[in-house]
Amino acid sequence: MSFFRNFLFLGLLSVAFCQEHSDTDPHLFPRPLIIELPQNVEPRCDSSIEETRLRCTGWRVAGEANNLSPWKTIPEECIDYVKDYMLGRSYEIDLQMVSNEAARFAKSIDLKGDRMDAWIFDIDETLLSNLPYYAEHGYGLEIFDHSQFDKWVLEGVAPTIEPSLKLYKEVLRLGFKIFLLTGRTENKRNITVNNLIEAGFHNWERLILRGNEDHGKTAVAFKSDKRKEIMEEGFRIIGNSGDQWSDLIGSALSVRSFKLSNPMYFIS
Amino acid sequence: MSFFRNFLFLGLLSVAFCQEHSDTDPHLFPRPLIIELPQNVEPRCDSSIEETRLRCTGWRVAGEANNLSPWKTIPEECIDYVKDYMLGRSYEIDLQMVSNEAARFAKSIDLKGDRMDAWIFDIDETLLSNLPYYAEHGYGLEIFDHSQFDKWVLEGVAPTIEPSLKLYKEVLRLGFKIFLLTGRTENKRNITVNNLIEAGFHNWERLILRGNEDHGKTAVAFKSDKRKEIMEEGFRIIGNSGDQWSDLIGSALSVRSFKLSNPMYFIS
Repeated sequence: MSFFRNFLFLGLLSVAFCQEHSDTDPHLFPRPLIIELPQNVEPRCDSSIEETRLRCTGWRVAGEANNLSPWKTIPEECIDYVKDYMLGRSYEIDLQMVSNEAARFAKSIDLKGDRMDAWIFDIDETLLSNLPYYAEHGYGLEIFDHSQFDKWVLEGVAPTIEPSLKLYKEVLRLGFKIFLLTGRTENKRNITVNNLIEAGFHNWERLILRGNEDHGKTAVAFKSDKRKEIMEEGFRIIGNSGDQWSDLIGSALSVRSFKLSNPMYFIS
Repeated sequence: MSFFRNFLFLGLLSVAFCQEHSDTDPHLFPRPLIIELPQNVEPRCDSSIEETRLRCTGWRVAGEANNLSPWKTIPEECIDYVKDYMLGRSYEIDLQMVSNEAARFAKSIDLKGDRMDAWIFDIDETLLSNLPYYAEHGYGLEIFDHSQFDKWVLEGVAPTIEPSLKLYKEVLRLGFKIFLLTGRTENKRNITVNNLIEAGFHNWERLILRGNEDHGKTAVAFKSDKRKEIMEEGFRIIGNSGDQWSDLIGSALSVRSFKLSNPMYFIS
């Protein structure tokens, strides 16, 4: 891109992205600065690693912006990136940001007082985290294995996504009715209820799982149909929180939706 | 988040994100390694800078995922981040990725052969870049100044966004009719046409600008109305490319839409 080449910051940027790490105040050092690295630490930022990180960030953000075609596994070159993202501060910061934005929006709503204002939450990677499962299965590099994943779900030990619990409690406090709308199937109702309660979630209005009649529907169709039913009962769906675009798009849409980060898998 | 704290990678990650930069192959150096920095380069990665970078990335991605409430200026702490992003490889990589994804989708479409398959492009920050203007106005830190910006637009020198030109040509080659749908007003038609042609864009079907009758409409309403008119003429809107969510949402939606990156401004 000739235009961008005319900006002369590229060289500076590669420095800006690959910065010097120090646990001490760098300004305490005299200059020119001599740093002695311990023997077991290898310098890790060459241009190809940096380029891979930028490509993987681009891929992740494209997913968050709903720009990607359906995908089955994460790009092979991004396994370290996805792992670092999920286990590090970035994922946590992103979850906190979406929780805060949603709470700010919820607070801005003038509830009608008829108890018909509703908020929908997805469950997996929205209220409960399956990260312990994915950590054992390549963070999305392995093709999804239904029976293995079902075994994990049936353990009922998926941990709380804390920023979502904070939002959940706030939405409840404000007077919204909470609907949990999940692609999990009816045969997992009990374990899901137990897991949710164990994880700190209480007082939802309804937990909607996939029944036999929903078999074969895409997630978009299933969730749109269920939102339509909720609306036909007279509820106003104000907010909708989910980690998949298929939680949020289709028909019978919420006033605003909130996309939680998830670079590990894609559901159509 | 107690669960995430149980993963012990946080310490490692802060190192992983703050890496050592070297222009030469690091494996050529003996260890322990001594690096002498030039006198005018300050080490820049302490934990607060890193935390700011993560927060600003989170903010940018939240925008790309349409999670943010309308905003007037970028967060003050993110000015360096946005500048580095826009001028560096990241923005370029992101533009190329969305262009490639859109082209892949366009190629997957079985065109009907009646010349009624349509693709919509927004103009500013989609086909033409206003980065030279924003570089002079704080990369979104300054509150938007209509009259200053109009002056820039009337110069007619906004550069090409090259990955979008590549997509544009591909979409045209495949046989789509191209509609340009922009929030620019009718009094800028001539300069816009000239700028587009100068930038390499040709053979669009129609250029739709805001007329007097569109005054006071939000971008979402204006663009939805115009898409509806296009559909009522019998066109099938297959793809829609824009840098604002207001280009893509509302009613009369395209089959798929493609959100180009833009952390500099927000249009409702």
